[in-house]
Amino acid sequence: MPRYRLDIEYDGAGFAGWQMQEGQPSVQGAIETAITAFSGEAVRIQGAGRTDAGVHATGQVAHVDLAKDWPAKTVMGGINAHLRMAGHRVAILRTAAVPETFNARFSATARHYRYRIINRRAPLALELGQAWLVPRFLDADAMQAAADTLLGRHDFTTFRSAHCQAKSPVRTLDRLQVVRNGEAIDFFVSARSFLHNQVRSFVGTLKRVGEGAWTPETVQQALEARDRARCGALAPADGLFLTAVDYDDG
Amino acid sequence: MPRYRLDIEYDGAGFAGWQMQEGQPSVQGAIETAITAFSGEAVRIQGAGRTDAGVHATGQVAHVDLAKDWPAKTVMGGINAHLRMAGHRVAILRTAAVPETFNARFSATARHYRYRIINRRAPLALELGQAWLVPRFLDADAMQAAADTLLGRHDFTTFRSAHCQAKSPVRTLDRLQVVRNGEAIDFFVSARSFLHNQVRSFVGTLKRVGEGAWTPETVQQALEARDRARCGALAPADGLFLTAVDYDDG
Repeated sequence: MPRYRLDIEYDGAGFAGWQMQEGQPSVQGAIETAITAFSGEAVRIQGAGRTDAGVHATGQVAHVDLAKDWPAKTVMGGINAHLRMAGHRVAILRTAAVPETFNARFSATARHYRYRIINRRAPLALELGQAWLVPRFLDADAMQAAADTLLGRHDFTTFRSAHCQAKSPVRTLDRLQVVRNGEAIDFFVSARSFLHNQVRSFVGTLKRVGEGAWTPETVQQALEARDRARCGALAPADGLFLTAVDYDDG
Repeated sequence: MPRYRLDIEYDGAGFAGWQMQEGQPSVQGAIETAITAFSGEAVRIQGAGRTDAGVHATGQVAHVDLAKDWPAKTVMGGINAHLRMAGHRVAILRTAAVPETFNARFSATARHYRYRIINRRAPLALELGQAWLVPRFLDADAMQAAADTLLGRHDFTTFRSAHCQAKSPVRTLDRLQVVRNGEAIDFFVSARSFLHNQVRSFVGTLKRVGEGAWTPETVQQALEARDRARCGALAPADGLFLTAVDYDDG
């Protein structure tokens, strides 16, 4: 069966998350329904990142096997037409035929997220639902200093959800960069894979540093404590975007 | 009476435009209602740019006179609280007490707009309603060459709406810059004042150049013809943002 790679953008606001859940709207379900509507085939797709409710993507990747050997452009156009008809804010950005050895989830060598804070007093009008509004001034340099203590290979028990199903809490954090641009503060976060709620746990903790309540040392001690109770309050889903997934062959 | 300057952000999607119109939702009306709700005063506000239905703002400016001498922060907080309660995607970014000589519309020395095209085949998911989706590849260099022919002082009859109420079609265009950043193409447009639909007429015309249908010379000839029929199809409101208004004292 021909296998296709799908690169996907979505607004997570209308969904209970990426993953199919009984009786809940999911991005995966919306795309599977659209594929069935255009191809007549019942399919299951596999995504690289199982984003939570309200989390967005500009570069989610999934794969799907179809019985018929469609041109990749036809697959993209067909899915997009049906997503649009259903009124979903989900779009297939690119489609490519890939070998059967390609697995969107298990072949991924890195995942990249961006988290956006808007640091101002005024409510959000244009970026409502796509950023976390933090009224108190945040010191981006202090947050970067704290972020640096998290880089590398660690037991990230402090920064994972109680519901995290990963066998090991050990991950290698390759990038955690804090960039202020006017009132926007973006966190760029990269790793081969993440624990459940890891990025939002980082951001919630760094925000405590940014407002001066905690220091970079507090964060390092929290990491070393391997204690979920030492994590800052979870940052809301609104500001989180899965921006890219890397694979060995492109 | 104390006069206040209001700096305003809004998503134009839910509104028939900035200006108050009988029986239609307007940004001006939403803000006036919020001011009345917080202050108990019936007011009329004056905006710097009368943006059309669907046009957004990140830096609209208005002024309002209130009978009571409120601290500027109280005015901002009060209006924002009531805008939010009403469910409007409108936010007051800053408020300042200004002299009675300040008039948001007539004291303005420059207005700045940004127009965003997303140049790709895939539908918009995240920027839906906030950009114009153009599937065919656009040559940004060719568009910039054509844009350069529009700079300076000209009779812009070709580029104004049939409903434009300005006495003179002569305006001085100070900036029309085309910047491609990946799949996004932003047009930065500045002038002391604009004719009705002038920016969207420019963008619609430059798009014809970008896709290769017209040349920079076609655009110069269209300008010189002073003939509305020579304008490209009006670009949709979705991609247009009023980003800033300048005044002599800041």
